[in-house]
Amino acid sequence: MASNFGKVFSITTWGESHGPALGVVLDGCPAGLELNEEDIQKQLDRRRVGQSKVTSPRNEADQVQILSGVFNGLTMGTPISMVIWNKDTDSSKYDNLKDLFRPGHADYSYLAKYGVRDHRGGGRSSGRETVGRVAAGAVARKLLAQVGVEIYGYTKELGGLVAEKIDLEEIERNIVRCPDPEIAPLMVEAILKAKEEKDSLGGIAEILATGVPAGLGEPVFDRLDADIAKGLLSIGATKAIEFGAGFDFARMRGSESNDPFVNQAGKIMTKANKAGGILGGISTGEDILVRLAVKPTSSIAREQTTVNTAGEETKIEVQGRHDPTIIVRLVPVAEAMMALVLADHLLRQRLARVKF
Amino acid sequence: MASNFGKVFSITTWGESHGPALGVVLDGCPAGLELNEEDIQKQLDRRRVGQSKVTSPRNEADQVQILSGVFNGLTMGTPISMVIWNKDTDSSKYDNLKDLFRPGHADYSYLAKYGVRDHRGGGRSSGRETVGRVAAGAVARKLLAQVGVEIYGYTKELGGLVAEKIDLEEIERNIVRCPDPEIAPLMVEAILKAKEEKDSLGGIAEILATGVPAGLGEPVFDRLDADIAKGLLSIGATKAIEFGAGFDFARMRGSESNDPFVNQAGKIMTKANKAGGILGGISTGEDILVRLAVKPTSSIAREQTTVNTAGEETKIEVQGRHDPTIIVRLVPVAEAMMALVLADHLLRQRLARVKF
Amino acid sequence: MASNFGKVFSITTWGESHGPALGVVLDGCPAGLELNEEDIQKQLDRRRVGQSKVTSPRNEADQVQILSGVFNGLTMGTPISMVIWNKDTDSSKYDNLKDLFRPGHADYSYLAKYGVRDHRGGGRSSGRETVGRVAAGAVARKLLAQVGVEIYGYTKELGGLVAEKIDLEEIERNIVRCPDPEIAPLMVEAILKAKEEKDSLGGIAEILATGVPAGLGEPVFDRLDADIAKGLLSIGATKAIEFGAGFDFARMRGSESNDPFVNQAGKIMTKANKAGGILGGISTGEDILVRLAVKPTSSIAREQTTVNTAGEETKIEVQGRHDPTIIVRLVPVAEAMMALVLADHLLRQRLARVKF
Amino acid sequence: MASNFGKVFSITTWGESHGPALGVVLDGCPAGLELNEEDIQKQLDRRRVGQSKVTSPRNEADQVQILSGVFNGLTMGTPISMVIWNKDTDSSKYDNLKDLFRPGHADYSYLAKYGVRDHRGGGRSSGRETVGRVAAGAVARKLLAQVGVEIYGYTKELGGLVAEKIDLEEIERNIVRCPDPEIAPLMVEAILKAKEEKDSLGGIAEILATGVPAGLGEPVFDRLDADIAKGLLSIGATKAIEFGAGFDFARMRGSESNDPFVNQAGKIMTKANKAGGILGGISTGEDILVRLAVKPTSSIAREQTTVNTAGEETKIEVQGRHDPTIIVRLVPVAEAMMALVLADHLLRQRLARVKF
Repeated sequence: MASNFGKVFSITTWGESHGPALGVVLDGCPAGLELNEEDIQKQLDRRRVGQSKVTSPRNEADQVQILSGVFNGLTMGTPISMVIWNKDTDSSKYDNLKDLFRPGHADYSYLAKYGVRDHRGGGRSSGRETVGRVAAGAVARKLLAQVGVEIYGYTKELGGLVAEKIDLEEIERNIVRCPDPEIAPLMVEAILKAKEEKDSLGGIAEILATGVPAGLGEPVFDRLDADIAKGLLSIGATKAIEFGAGFDFARMRGSESNDPFVNQAGKIMTKANKAGGILGGISTGEDILVRLAVKPTSSIAREQTTVNTAGEETKIEVQGRHDPTIIVRLVPVAEAMMALVLADHLLRQRLARVKF
Repeated sequence: MASNFGKVFSITTWGESHGPALGVVLDGCPAGLELNEEDIQKQLDRRRVGQSKVTSPRNEADQVQILSGVFNGLTMGTPISMVIWNKDTDSSKYDNLKDLFRPGHADYSYLAKYGVRDHRGGGRSSGRETVGRVAAGAVARKLLAQVGVEIYGYTKELGGLVAEKIDLEEIERNIVRCPDPEIAPLMVEAILKAKEEKDSLGGIAEILATGVPAGLGEPVFDRLDADIAKGLLSIGATKAIEFGAGFDFARMRGSESNDPFVNQAGKIMTKANKAGGILGGISTGEDILVRLAVKPTSSIAREQTTVNTAGEETKIEVQGRHDPTIIVRLVPVAEAMMALVLADHLLRQRLARVKF
Repeated sequence: MASNFGKVFSITTWGESHGPALGVVLDGCPAGLELNEEDIQKQLDRRRVGQSKVTSPRNEADQVQILSGVFNGLTMGTPISMVIWNKDTDSSKYDNLKDLFRPGHADYSYLAKYGVRDHRGGGRSSGRETVGRVAAGAVARKLLAQVGVEIYGYTKELGGLVAEKIDLEEIERNIVRCPDPEIAPLMVEAILKAKEEKDSLGGIAEILATGVPAGLGEPVFDRLDADIAKGLLSIGATKAIEFGAGFDFARMRGSESNDPFVNQAGKIMTKANKAGGILGGISTGEDILVRLAVKPTSSIAREQTTVNTAGEETKIEVQGRHDPTIIVRLVPVAEAMMALVLADHLLRQRLARVKF
Repeated sequence: MASNFGKVFSITTWGESHGPALGVVLDGCPAGLELNEEDIQKQLDRRRVGQSKVTSPRNEADQVQILSGVFNGLTMGTPISMVIWNKDTDSSKYDNLKDLFRPGHADYSYLAKYGVRDHRGGGRSSGRETVGRVAAGAVARKLLAQVGVEIYGYTKELGGLVAEKIDLEEIERNIVRCPDPEIAPLMVEAILKAKEEKDSLGGIAEILATGVPAGLGEPVFDRLDADIAKGLLSIGATKAIEFGAGFDFARMRGSESNDPFVNQAGKIMTKANKAGGILGGISTGEDILVRLAVKPTSSIAREQTTVNTAGEETKIEVQGRHDPTIIVRLVPVAEAMMALVLADHLLRQRLARVKF
């Protein structure tokens, strides 16, 4: 149950960073959806290593293969199994880490949990696990597109640089996924500088969903925001999330935080969407907006202190081919998780009424 | 599935604000745990209305009744059903709200979802739903105490006032659950002022878990932090969460955010617990620390603008007996959710290895 | 998770035979269904003790109370909590059984599982647990009635006497729920004779569902027949189940067992419905027919040999007020389980296609 | 959720008969179990087509590949993904069936459910889906072996011929998996005769589990027998199941069906294990014995009548390479399902008590 996400539109991912392959089984995609490998590949390419000078030089084509659930270009209602083969696994770089706990990584906590661990590239805790999420997320997006939902993600902040202008068209035009064309080159520069200094940068991603119908989400536990939070914080390196005005709500008064309902051309909306599109855990029909804190890449080339499995303090240098910042490649993963949550709740909404 | 939380130590809550009763069924509590109604009541009393001048004057004893699963003072391994009867339901105050959407509330989104709604006191979206969580959380705490886990919650910030000193002993000594004895009276004052002005205040709660063994949480989706985030953000009025250094991670470099492992008297720990006790989704054996943003109470007595179910703009005055700030009574609820997540993962950890 | 049944239309039952109450929480009933306590009570009365001379003389009104989820006569989409109070619990009859394992009962296996047990009336293993199922099943029936599904159960065989004629009108006209008016009095006689001899009788129940739309059930694991089997065999005292021709299929050839599809007035059906309404785990649109073997009541008044908790062989006499046969009161429980499975799959079918 | 089985030791199978591959993801296998591909292959070979003259001549090596979850010969606690590639898919034989509903098959019910279907070899409804079950079942068996549980399956009855002698050593010595060496050749003969006559045979499989500890299974819904029933009846072509004395219980009196507890050399057991190793849904520590009715292969070469998708009556001849009886190859699948249920409950039993 641990590698499973979503109750109705439900995925199980599998695979380790240096195993033969990674993948996902998507169970619960309705029958009759047009789907082909290009739909998936397009999203995987956005998440791929080696896409630019600000990402890891590991060379993985991340070519997806659909192994089941699709026939004649249509989903069959049966599980969609997708596999991505590992090609460029150079495990030798990890030999010296076998008995060391990398700072900021899951090495120690995994060993504490299981008593054994796959030290090669972090094994299951590697960011490579997310290929399966992105592949399934691409299917979710196709389903959501049927009702007009679109999902956008971008680098809102990186190394202290903040995108002021949010131009959605701009995002994929630069290699840092920054929606502000003036800030984007500064971000690139900051990353390269950090890399040169054998260091890494953190940032803030924003995820936006438009066209979301009102009524998605469940009261009490499976609130749309609670599920989005779980989905997004299940991505490695994320440490905080806020919805709408988020932490700023803590400093408001009710008379400020309350957002009057208004009738906009026949559609009931709030004046300022301070809540980020969700009230009482259920979507209001307005844009959903989420901010996600991403910590700097834990794998840095400079020497650090740590302990080994025998408990002795020692020095460590993390070799390997790492991203100097995670946020650029995390954006498509975060979008995928948002898509998976929304697709799940879109289907669950079909269960809400005796008659629709 | 929507009113269910936890995979192994699992609860289902039920009940509406103005229905005859509310309650919870806890399925998955192991047999042989000492349990009686006082264990539960102690926590419910902390969450109760009318406990002081800063909480709602609604008069509910919130007396719990255990209806099953306990025999001779021991849990039986079977479901523990607990009920709390509503006594002081004055639904007349809500008659005028039947066709109005209260700003900041779930009225509109519920109606959009279900096509029908219980307008009396918010129905299922009411904070009263959380009595069941607190009752079940009290059982979780008893289970956690078996291995030395303790959970503390407090008001870190309220109406702009920040507790600087964190003295856990201080928390229950003042009516705002502030761990800083100098700030507490200022917070009380701020609340009373807001109340007088027919307004309400937001704040930040911190939840701390000590004594948590290393190894709790699952890779990938059911990460301990992801599950805590879902649990805490499933509480009404919460809008953001951060773990350890949280959003500050976004502005760090890897060389700052990485936290060297050290050997402290034979126990492997990190130097500064920047991660808040969780790495790769799995507990490190250090304290878990979470910050939760709470918006101001949406029900305020001053006039607001809104629309009615016919889509016409109108004025609204929300009567009823409301808390001028939610955070004071939310703290025990947040603690309960933390306890439920930890209890669930404590049991799940028994499944992690072939031999223990 | 253990006391939970159904994935979408999902129930959790709770309660022990001699605890204060028993009940059920139904999560996943769609909003807008007309529902009142009489709908539920009608089914509970059919399952009640003391309804005739062939059932236990324990005196329980089994009056249901709906505690949540219904407002103004309509379901709200939120959990429906229902409680039935125990009134006539005479636990003294069980004092002498505290350290004995009753033959045919779960006393030993419960103790082996939990290390503790509630010996009063079997605790959780008592047939009284099924009141919650019948209460929730009554809601399922109301939902199913919206699409024309009706469920019938009857005593097909009892103490070797077989109902040859199946007249559905006849079932509730006699106290043994036998659809054959000529066999019914013989069954009554057989029960009374067994009772007089301090013994009990087994039998076979048939459960029939009519009006089931084609397409319910899932491929592979959650087949409609697999789920019905689980539901029905989760009722205490059941030991075998068959669908359609059942065990007789084992002696057929493919040319006999295959059932040609035919076009009956525009509806595709099979010639003889040998499969019992399900092919490949999915309903065909024909009647679903199931046969269920029910063992004789394990509690019999005559002396038996057994061992005690110390492992010593001893004699036992099971006092208490028991049914001389289980099947009469099991029929409404089996109907309820059938209804719950069908309601769950009726809703799940809404998830099967991109467009309906 | 539909292609998922097991709550803790949990599998998701995927794949169609004529797609590129089939497989399974096993989530919840504890870390530290020795596992290699030969463990899996051994069981797959027992289920393979083309193993003898009584099985289908389709030529599939069914070579398993473990893609994740195993490192250095040990399970890692992470999902174990296994794939089996389809090699010998001759879809042309199915072209003429595209618009026909094969009698006894799921063609019509799948189309009624999904509105689309993969007609090639039955798609997802094909018996080939079970390779994933057998692969995962092999892992379950390794886990069960740790505590001494062994599982045996055999052909108890076939085409009216009944194995009288149950010699477990004999089972794999003959090609029909009959435990009676005198009956085995008669069964072979009967199959070949049916095949010659373009027909097929049904039968009864028995599944036996030895060494099962007392205490497995849950009260109420997830009873061990209910879960075994669901698991076994989720295998295509099964139509009935009985536990222990099964349907014979219906004709017994309580004084016969009750099975006195006895102390056998310090172990509490029943005299005759009439219940088949399960009382109140929980294992007693005795052998679990189940009988499963298997219908004749639906695909037979002789001409049959049916209707097409336009609803017109027509003739059909099912070409393809089919087993003249299903039971021989179903036995290892049924064993696998038994193993999966027991492994799940073996782990779940770790959750039953506060202290073990």
